[in-house]
Amino acid sequence: MLRIREASASDTGSIWDIFHAVVSLGDTYAFDPKISREDALAYWLHPANRCFVAEREGHIVGTYILKANQPGLGAHVANAAYMVSPDARGLGVGRAMGEHSLKEACRLGFRAMQFNFVVSTNESAVRLWQRLGFTIVGTLPGAFHHSSGRYVDAYVMFRSLAEG
Amino acid sequence: MLRIREASASDTGSIWDIFHAVVSLGDTYAFDPKISREDALAYWLHPANRCFVAEREGHIVGTYILKANQPGLGAHVANAAYMVSPDARGLGVGRAMGEHSLKEACRLGFRAMQFNFVVSTNESAVRLWQRLGFTIVGTLPGAFHHSSGRYVDAYVMFRSLAEG
Repeated sequence: MLRIREASASDTGSIWDIFHAVVSLGDTYAFDPKISREDALAYWLHPANRCFVAEREGHIVGTYILKANQPGLGAHVANAAYMVSPDARGLGVGRAMGEHSLKEACRLGFRAMQFNFVVSTNESAVRLWQRLGFTIVGTLPGAFHHSSGRYVDAYVMFRSLAEG
Repeated sequence: MLRIREASASDTGSIWDIFHAVVSLGDTYAFDPKISREDALAYWLHPANRCFVAEREGHIVGTYILKANQPGLGAHVANAAYMVSPDARGLGVGRAMGEHSLKEACRLGFRAMQFNFVVSTNESAVRLWQRLGFTIVGTLPGAFHHSSGRYVDAYVMFRSLAEG
């Protein structure tokens, strides 16, 4: 049973554990794999973000942030980022957070949601977002320096929220 | 005769004048047209940016910033933003700053340059970037709330710097 709720101050340690585990692999996010706890939390828990956690049997297994993708005249498009603990992969945590974030974005009055940088080799993520109604609207050639050493493409993905 | 140089502290007033004039029109940048001087300068003169100005007959007529578009594993792709004083349009200031920024990005070792949000109705900008070798690699449907009231598309534009 998965419960998704707004993060509280006491979740900070769990959020960093997940962030660190995900980012240090260097295969899905552009963050420096050696980013400090302080810099990571300053980014993820920025006052302009809403931060949520997914809880399963008393453990935090995922976290996501939701915000406007642009200021002022672009602030009707939401942006979000999701991280699932490597230990909790394959349990539908990403999908549940994705669905939660779309509802939340609708509730907040956003007209669309955009991901700026989905690493093309992260096929499970690309597939999940497509299932949730996102389309690849752009391809950034070689924009991600994968931990394998290769430069791989990143996708811009977009979904209207007009149909709810 | 146009001279492009790094901005200094004494250029701050001119930079704000240009920023304010451009942004208040609400037709090219997502910034809130009523953004404060303080917020505008905190963004434009952020310590992670290199900021340049274009000087013509002793007057600052344009400014641009150059930075990495992503952290860590995406930091090989540059990002830049340009503003030309409405009084100095049609004098080639944008083009000169564009060329200057591409050289500067090469010099700094960037492998490519990306613009995240070129407003599709800003046809002179789209044309200029295409002339300078950029391609539209993505279209963000209705992502810009134009001052006319319409939601118009924004483009993601990209250019490799491999060929110099």
